[in-house]
Amino acid sequence: MIVDALLAVLPADRVVLDPDVMASYQHDEAEWAPSATPLAVVRPATADEVQATVRACLDHGTAVVTRGAGTGLSGGANATAGCIVLALDRMTAITEIDHLERYAVVQPGVINDDLRAAVAEVGLWYPPDPASSPWSTIGGNVATNAGGLCCVKYGVTRDYVMGMEVVTGTGEKVRLGRRTAKGVAGYDLAGLMVGSEGTLGVITEITVKLRPLQDPQRTVAGYFDSIVDAGRAVAAVAAAGLTPSALELVDKQCLLAVDAWKNMGLSVDAEVVLLGRVDTPGQIGDQEAEKMLACFDEGGATWSAVSTDQEEADALFAARRLAYPAMERLGPVLTEDVCVPKRHVPEMLSRIEKIGIAHDVVIANIAHAGDGNLHPLLITPPGDDAARARSQAAFAEIIDAALALGGTVTGEHGVGLLKMHGLVQELDPVVLAMHRAVKGALDPQGILNPGKVFDQLGSPV
Amino acid sequence: MIVDALLAVLPADRVVLDPDVMASYQHDEAEWAPSATPLAVVRPATADEVQATVRACLDHGTAVVTRGAGTGLSGGANATAGCIVLALDRMTAITEIDHLERYAVVQPGVINDDLRAAVAEVGLWYPPDPASSPWSTIGGNVATNAGGLCCVKYGVTRDYVMGMEVVTGTGEKVRLGRRTAKGVAGYDLAGLMVGSEGTLGVITEITVKLRPLQDPQRTVAGYFDSIVDAGRAVAAVAAAGLTPSALELVDKQCLLAVDAWKNMGLSVDAEVVLLGRVDTPGQIGDQEAEKMLACFDEGGATWSAVSTDQEEADALFAARRLAYPAMERLGPVLTEDVCVPKRHVPEMLSRIEKIGIAHDVVIANIAHAGDGNLHPLLITPPGDDAARARSQAAFAEIIDAALALGGTVTGEHGVGLLKMHGLVQELDPVVLAMHRAVKGALDPQGILNPGKVFDQLGSPV
Repeated sequence: MIVDALLAVLPADRVVLDPDVMASYQHDEAEWAPSATPLAVVRPATADEVQATVRACLDHGTAVVTRGAGTGLSGGANATAGCIVLALDRMTAITEIDHLERYAVVQPGVINDDLRAAVAEVGLWYPPDPASSPWSTIGGNVATNAGGLCCVKYGVTRDYVMGMEVVTGTGEKVRLGRRTAKGVAGYDLAGLMVGSEGTLGVITEITVKLRPLQDPQRTVAGYFDSIVDAGRAVAAVAAAGLTPSALELVDKQCLLAVDAWKNMGLSVDAEVVLLGRVDTPGQIGDQEAEKMLACFDEGGATWSAVSTDQEEADALFAARRLAYPAMERLGPVLTEDVCVPKRHVPEMLSRIEKIGIAHDVVIANIAHAGDGNLHPLLITPPGDDAARARSQAAFAEIIDAALALGGTVTGEHGVGLLKMHGLVQELDPVVLAMHRAVKGALDPQGILNPGKVFDQLGSPV
Repeated sequence: MIVDALLAVLPADRVVLDPDVMASYQHDEAEWAPSATPLAVVRPATADEVQATVRACLDHGTAVVTRGAGTGLSGGANATAGCIVLALDRMTAITEIDHLERYAVVQPGVINDDLRAAVAEVGLWYPPDPASSPWSTIGGNVATNAGGLCCVKYGVTRDYVMGMEVVTGTGEKVRLGRRTAKGVAGYDLAGLMVGSEGTLGVITEITVKLRPLQDPQRTVAGYFDSIVDAGRAVAAVAAAGLTPSALELVDKQCLLAVDAWKNMGLSVDAEVVLLGRVDTPGQIGDQEAEKMLACFDEGGATWSAVSTDQEEADALFAARRLAYPAMERLGPVLTEDVCVPKRHVPEMLSRIEKIGIAHDVVIANIAHAGDGNLHPLLITPPGDDAARARSQAAFAEIIDAALALGGTVTGEHGVGLLKMHGLVQELDPVVLAMHRAVKGALDPQGILNPGKVFDQLGSPV
């Protein structure tokens, strides 16, 4: 019946009912997060079509699960039983690049790297660079407040969203935010939408702030015999007052998996590699790179150097970006996303190692180490149910450890389905009640991505 | 009756009933914004006392108007009939400065300059620097999302708020946000509180992000015969792709008023002065300063120079900061706060000039010109009701002009009382309805600063 209603208001090719195609839109990349076959997948071409879809779903009390490229890692975009999946992958226009005011206006389906390439042509830079940037969309990045490699110096998606167009939970199409450099006219509802994972509105257009192109970066590489040594180097960088433009950690398991896949000729004689970058121009930047090198050595690096070979440096960062999909090829990967205070990075890495041993789970590690955002990857042999149970137990224990160290259950991937229990541990019941109140205010019928992030229907605490 | 209830739960010295003292807490600096004598002024010393106050007010259905130093310019902190004023000027502790994680935890009554001085001692910097920084509080800065001089490069208060403690509209005390570098656990309720002008919660503690100390700045000064010429120079700076660390405009009337007050020995042979700053280190910064100079000349500067005299440069910036209080000494000043796209700064300044002439209103000008945030000051002879009416008409017309150029009615001062009509012009009725819904969700009894910002009780549109 909702499907008939959709077919009545949308061009026929917008409504996908083919089971095989629908299956490809059913879930994101979160391992073991539940999903169901949707009633239909709608692939609108315009904001008006999004609005027509939401209105039809309001009429029929049908849940709307919005998604971009489906590269999410927490199940936030997974279809639920009886829902419509609203896939924005057809809305890929870069509507405007304003060189003087330094912003771009984009549709939500624009791929992150495509935006970066387009604005680079006029000498501008869109900094947020999740490792998924070759595949993930700006809409998805905004919905999850995605981070990335350069966030350690340049901030996260939230810091670059000036305004947006949204179809609300009541089926209205509105503009939130601004296009001026400053503005405080009313509540920051655009900011509230960022990271709300499709539960407060459907974002149909985004205005993002741009910066001048980044200065050339020096790369500092360090090899370590243990992950805790590498963690000590990370804490030393923070203690030295340095602001790297990236500070990434990747372990041998990940590098070997990337090499086995892409044959990049990586040969690394270390258990763990730290990759730092410095983009401060001139001599001062050279000095900062040398200081970072000293911090690596202080942490116990077995080898370290400021790279003189840009190609080699780029290859190492490319390997870092490919680490997750490379590991995923080898079997189910449960991806953690905890973030802890920088001084606790060594301790947290040590606890992760112990948790892996205690539960007999292989844990590989990548991390945006510079801002304490760790991504332990829990590897499980395909089809091994006992291993899966051990992996899930370890996952929960890593969350406990992060919270105990003053951290958060999710640094940049979002809550989705996988971190719902963690969120309840992290937030005060009163704060969860505030979430429900805001949700009820902006989506009174509860049709936007129900069942995700927090218990949206729970009674006030 | 509410007064008895307050006296029952608070130490006696917290409750101010003396009419003369209460009068000093009755309104902020907004000219002609209405205010009334409150039932009492409460000056709590702790968050628990704030909570006790809010709970007593909930019991009695009494409105709570929270204020910091009262330096606001839109009437947001003005007392309303039958309200309690909650003055947080006793809560001035800097609780923690974490050098390694780069944050500070402060009570809301901490003066902006005091925080800046305290963190500078450990080599850190809190960038947001409203011109009121010697007097205004961090709590007030957060409640209005204050901007300032360095925002053109370093962003506004919003960009530095990591987390906070809040007493909610239901009288609960909660923590929002985080202390880690990243975090996306749930809705950005801390961000929602920023700029909400006391209508969604009472902020009792704030965790602010810090940066390393700013590099030394070069100052570029330019003299112009007309404000529109100076505006052209501002647009040229933006078009050249420069990112100044400040770009301020101040006219002769303001400089003369400051000199008459402070006797600073300013002698300026120009109608309008532009003050630019560049903090990029090294040769690149030198080149940027030269480029800015060329932009000033392109705009038609009659004289321009990169200052070699740091003392003289500092005096000019000090004069800029004192411009508003200096003008205020001369009579009633209605302060505008529009923000327009940078390319429209010359056109907007031209319209302001014409509006002043058309309404026979003297308009002095200061501006955070680099981000298009203009503060025309409408000067009126004391006690001249006809002039007051003309001034208010000009004020409304400036708002119309800013909106017509794609701008906003308030760049950094907030809506308060003076811009409520402007907000209705700027925002879609549906967006206003979203405001009411959020307000109703978080302050269901409507006791937090009612009657401000938007028609909080209006029926949904």
